[in-house]
Amino acid sequence: MQFSAAQIAMIINGSIEGDPGTAVGSFGKIEEAKKGQLAFLANPKYEDFLYTTEASIIIINEALKLRQPVNATLIRVPDAYSSFAQLLGAYQELVAKQLKGIQQPSLISNSASLGENVFVGAFSYIGDNVQIGENVKIHPQVYIGNDVKIGKDTVLHPGVKIYQGCKVGANVTIHGGTIIGSDGFGFAPQTDGTYKKVPQIGNVVVEDNVEIGANCTIDRATIGSTIIHAGAKLDNLIQIAHNVEIGSYTVIAAQSGVSGSTKVGKNVMIGGQVGIVGHITIADGSRINAQSGVTKSINAPMAVTGSPAFNYAAALRAQAVSRNLPELEKRIKELEKQIQMMLEKAV
Amino acid sequence: MQFSAAQIAMIINGSIEGDPGTAVGSFGKIEEAKKGQLAFLANPKYEDFLYTTEASIIIINEALKLRQPVNATLIRVPDAYSSFAQLLGAYQELVAKQLKGIQQPSLISNSASLGENVFVGAFSYIGDNVQIGENVKIHPQVYIGNDVKIGKDTVLHPGVKIYQGCKVGANVTIHGGTIIGSDGFGFAPQTDGTYKKVPQIGNVVVEDNVEIGANCTIDRATIGSTIIHAGAKLDNLIQIAHNVEIGSYTVIAAQSGVSGSTKVGKNVMIGGQVGIVGHITIADGSRINAQSGVTKSINAPMAVTGSPAFNYAAALRAQAVSRNLPELEKRIKELEKQIQMMLEKAV
Amino acid sequence: MQFSAAQIAMIINGSIEGDPGTAVGSFGKIEEAKKGQLAFLANPKYEDFLYTTEASIIIINEALKLRQPVNATLIRVPDAYSSFAQLLGAYQELVAKQLKGIQQPSLISNSASLGENVFVGAFSYIGDNVQIGENVKIHPQVYIGNDVKIGKDTVLHPGVKIYQGCKVGANVTIHGGTIIGSDGFGFAPQTDGTYKKVPQIGNVVVEDNVEIGANCTIDRATIGSTIIHAGAKLDNLIQIAHNVEIGSYTVIAAQSGVSGSTKVGKNVMIGGQVGIVGHITIADGSRINAQSGVTKSINAPMAVTGSPAFNYAAALRAQAVSRNLPELEKRIKELEKQIQMMLEKAV
Repeated sequence: MQFSAAQIAMIINGSIEGDPGTAVGSFGKIEEAKKGQLAFLANPKYEDFLYTTEASIIIINEALKLRQPVNATLIRVPDAYSSFAQLLGAYQELVAKQLKGIQQPSLISNSASLGENVFVGAFSYIGDNVQIGENVKIHPQVYIGNDVKIGKDTVLHPGVKIYQGCKVGANVTIHGGTIIGSDGFGFAPQTDGTYKKVPQIGNVVVEDNVEIGANCTIDRATIGSTIIHAGAKLDNLIQIAHNVEIGSYTVIAAQSGVSGSTKVGKNVMIGGQVGIVGHITIADGSRINAQSGVTKSINAPMAVTGSPAFNYAAALRAQAVSRNLPELEKRIKELEKQIQMMLEKAV
Repeated sequence: MQFSAAQIAMIINGSIEGDPGTAVGSFGKIEEAKKGQLAFLANPKYEDFLYTTEASIIIINEALKLRQPVNATLIRVPDAYSSFAQLLGAYQELVAKQLKGIQQPSLISNSASLGENVFVGAFSYIGDNVQIGENVKIHPQVYIGNDVKIGKDTVLHPGVKIYQGCKVGANVTIHGGTIIGSDGFGFAPQTDGTYKKVPQIGNVVVEDNVEIGANCTIDRATIGSTIIHAGAKLDNLIQIAHNVEIGSYTVIAAQSGVSGSTKVGKNVMIGGQVGIVGHITIADGSRINAQSGVTKSINAPMAVTGSPAFNYAAALRAQAVSRNLPELEKRIKELEKQIQMMLEKAV
Repeated sequence: MQFSAAQIAMIINGSIEGDPGTAVGSFGKIEEAKKGQLAFLANPKYEDFLYTTEASIIIINEALKLRQPVNATLIRVPDAYSSFAQLLGAYQELVAKQLKGIQQPSLISNSASLGENVFVGAFSYIGDNVQIGENVKIHPQVYIGNDVKIGKDTVLHPGVKIYQGCKVGANVTIHGGTIIGSDGFGFAPQTDGTYKKVPQIGNVVVEDNVEIGANCTIDRATIGSTIIHAGAKLDNLIQIAHNVEIGSYTVIAAQSGVSGSTKVGKNVMIGGQVGIVGHITIADGSRINAQSGVTKSINAPMAVTGSPAFNYAAALRAQAVSRNLPELEKRIKELEKQIQMMLEKAV
């Protein structure tokens, strides 16, 4: 798709300096952009590139005063960066919305129901009694088990697998390779040292406006539901165990894991590679630093770090001292020597 | 599928109070169950729900005395929870066993042999000389490379990939997205700073009754086999490197990793996000706490924690003190001051 | 395929003792090998097996003096282990190169271009304008989005997903389940506590001779490219965030993660389960110990460990003391008591 400066200026409500007919077909960084690309300049330290770039159209701040003539067509807006982001968002939505129709081969059960404007990519599998809302985009090689329900405007990227009986809300995005609804890890130890599987017959509920990254695993509940509440954002390679709840607008960075039956509150921020044990509660608004290991409930919003995790500020002070432990030990030895000498003198 | 109270009572050997013809088609928690669902009551603190639930059938303990009339049909058993679990297990087995036949499109090599009652889901790939035992259920989008052998009653969930030459035993369950037999991570450093790949020509052997979670990676051996011994249970997102052995009935929680050539004994319990270095041995019956980093062999069964990991009880004591390090440092400063004063006085 | 001792001796430039017509079809460890298999003996402690093994051909060191007669045909070389590795490499290349042709069903866009000798496995998807170099092997169930470019001799194992617009170089290997080009984790917090997605319109560039393990996730850049430079080697389950660069010949062990916009230099060695925060720089040649958490730039090559990570040698000393913290505290208490007594006496 090609867009003219005139079209772009209209979308972002900017004013044009140069040829309104100049056309671009892709985006580039100002320092690398080629002819036919759109770039932006927001950070003044990149201004020099404005005069050397090959970009055909550049979005710049209204306030910027040119020091030299510029080859590109300029579009001036109050805030170049947010106009650029707005444009990208609009562009991506446009491209995504154009996906439509059923690619072959794919397998769609006769008992499945698909809304308007749904896309089903090749090699995707849609089981019995599945309900797919309007505008849902199912990329190739996706698996949707029996009785799954998916709300409108949701996007499932290539290779997502959703096991039988799970529910996914509207406007959800799930990235490639993520598994929704695998069995919870439940095995009852037997007296002979073996294990007996505890049947996992619950499901996973992913509410509206959730985004889940690539290659995550979200286990179904033993009974009831594992729930990712509305608006939560999960990065890649995250493990959510059975019967966990993740609160609304909670954000979890990559490679973190939450163990069984733990309830994470709303607007919690969890760094990367964090582990949270099972059967605890994390208060709304808590912040958990990367690589922490949370072993106890957090009952009031606080920041924690470390493994086991405790109060962030106190932990930083303890860490600072811990780096000097060899020196501290030396000081203790020195004290012991001095006391020994004093005691000997005293005798 | 619908089941009557009479049928259920027969399976779990219970006695009916109410209409034996009452039918249910799914399960629910007693506090949420709707008409047409089966619930159970085991924990006395939920007894109030017994009188308000909409569930059609409820399994309760023989000993429970009703305080009020109940709408649902009751089935009394000695232990409601274990009868319920037994019922779920039976139900799941029933559903799973009904899967049968070859969905199209799928690709099955002419030289592959399939046992009785095998299910092959759409978009699955079965390579040359593959042997599949009876009752094996291969869900959609599974890849089984050449010369793989799979024992009877095994279940491969959607998207599992098993590379060429690997062996999977009987009654094994592998969850979605797990990769069995990818190359071990072996690269010989060259004098010019580059690396040369060490060919990985071994395989992976998964013995009987093993369960492996979703999105795990189990690398093939350089030479010989990476082995998951009978009855071991692995959670999600676990990394098992080349030439590792995991002992029978060892349990590993999510996101843990075991490095190359390490031998983990039997009945070991490994928490989540644990790392174990290569070329060591972990004694049978050891327990490794979550997020530990095990850097040395554990030669006799013990519990460890920390990174690097050491004796669990000692580590907990050290952790407790380490949180007070700033205060400890203050006490040392105070001692130094006092000694300084005493020394000055003495002079 | 069967190979005779004569053929093998020619490839590895060895001399035969026994029947040059002896044929083998697979490899085995000397202690386990069966008739029709090739084994090697490099480590003298395994010499006893030389006289009992059923292997048909054995590669041994020139220098080895036989203590007993041997049934197998021997091939003598200066260094048995490296000749064996060389042979395996040659064998694997041979097998891999034989893969050719387009399996059905697969979906290849009319606008895609494929080089000579390309293999496309069943259920693979190749989108619009994709360019595939010669000898590329695309195993089953792979997804290649629109406008992706893949250099010659590259191997994509089953289930790899490469999102639209990414570039993969020549002679690259990517293992099963790895996701290239999923969205970077970028969400702008809004004043009402919700998040707005930041469009991710960059791509991923994987340069020549890179190897990436199974079930990794490499996110596309917000703008520009996430880059894995030539010759880097990544193990399994690794997370590379948006706009990260990994330097040439850097090696990363399993389950490590690098956060957004961080630049990792060349020839860096990163252990398993390491976390590196965003927006920092790691100097060429640095070494990061397993499970470290790197929170600050490393400006000159050094070895680090711990979370937060610092100088390796200093960290080990601090760790050693930290294990004795309870004893250290006892010594402080003892000092306090002694001083107290001395002060009381002095009064």
